[in-house]
Amino acid sequence: EIVAAIEAAFGDGPLKGKRILVTSGPTHEPIDPVRYIANRSSGAQGTAIGAALAKLGAEVVFVTGPADVAPPSGVEVVKVQSAAEMLSAVEAALPVDAGVFAAAVADWRVASSSESKIKKKNGKMPVLEFAENPDILAQVSQMKTGRPTLIVGFAAETDDVIANATAKRLRKGCDWIVANDVSPATGIMGGSENDVTLISKDGSEDWPRMGKQAVAERLALKIAKALSD
Amino acid sequence: EIVAAIEAAFGDGPLKGKRILVTSGPTHEPIDPVRYIANRSSGAQGTAIGAALAKLGAEVVFVTGPADVAPPSGVEVVKVQSAAEMLSAVEAALPVDAGVFAAAVADWRVASSSESKIKKKNGKMPVLEFAENPDILAQVSQMKTGRPTLIVGFAAETDDVIANATAKRLRKGCDWIVANDVSPATGIMGGSENDVTLISKDGSEDWPRMGKQAVAERLALKIAKALSD
Repeated sequence: EIVAAIEAAFGDGPLKGKRILVTSGPTHEPIDPVRYIANRSSGAQGTAIGAALAKLGAEVVFVTGPADVAPPSGVEVVKVQSAAEMLSAVEAALPVDAGVFAAAVADWRVASSSESKIKKKNGKMPVLEFAENPDILAQVSQMKTGRPTLIVGFAAETDDVIANATAKRLRKGCDWIVANDVSPATGIMGGSENDVTLISKDGSEDWPRMGKQAVAERLALKIAKALSD
Repeated sequence: EIVAAIEAAFGDGPLKGKRILVTSGPTHEPIDPVRYIANRSSGAQGTAIGAALAKLGAEVVFVTGPADVAPPSGVEVVKVQSAAEMLSAVEAALPVDAGVFAAAVADWRVASSSESKIKKKNGKMPVLEFAENPDILAQVSQMKTGRPTLIVGFAAETDDVIANATAKRLRKGCDWIVANDVSPATGIMGGSENDVTLISKDGSEDWPRMGKQAVAERLALKIAKALSD
């Protein structure tokens, strides 16, 4: 209802004419043709954000890994599997006015994923070596030319949420970090609610626990305000 | 339509009074609260088999990992995540007349999964040690007392399909193996069709490529015949 009120106030939608990239969902990193490593992410929060931005009039490019929930309507959907594919899709979507990086991108991939199903050898477990995935958020945040005006990252943490997320914002070079505590006890992972703290250069803003759609609408309005300043 | 004809011929359904366990879907093995290792399995073939057995009158216990497709109706559904949980659910479902082990159970789990989100240390990738998961198919196949009359395993292979699946049948001690080639080029993984070879002590039976539902109906009829002999 807040969004509806704002929509009425702004007429066409405060984000009309703005192109915004949203990444969402997990990535799947192949081990071999039948196995993969994944992050737990339903894609619910990213999908709600994509929908909220579109509702405010933005042209949304929605780059999504294999999520549980269907992508929002009224956006351009690009489906990917791995972090490397997500980076390519993000690069192809640029330039944009803002980027919201809500995907739970795997930090690592298997260094040399196998074309054949890996079998035990002499009864021994396989050894998997990992390689670092491209850091999509940092790469876009640190662009020398054509950097989006506003870049929003996410930090799903289980310990020292604010400290870890504040450090992440500085390390990546993004403008805002939406931090949340995904410890199993919170029930946020896979649930319909979220309890976030928004971290910017001005400090942190603790939002009350609310539905993922309400978080999305509040964030979309903040983005609209930032882009119109 | 084959099933309908048989149903008509048998009246109440040839599997009436039979209790059959079906496992389906992948398992998810936790690395830490946000990451896991998974097998690619939509659960489509196992779900079709559960439905086909129920249609023939069987009392079906359907133990499923986190699958993409919804479980069949008219069966008792038990949802699990990891291989260890699947084994417990299978043990709780016994005794049964037949067991169809269609789940793509992860062979390994992470030896000591972490309660906290794993971080890089000194810029180094984490090292994951693996432990062998319980072998549910072998364990049930090799029961000394109360073993199901008929045990059907599955073998998703990418190379030497028949040889690997034949060896698997002997190693596990199950009665039949439904073998298929899941090489990426076949398009079977995640697709709606399957191309299987049924392997028993009498040799191998190559079925033509057909829909997963048709495979399920043919297998259910074969199971009904075997249990009535």
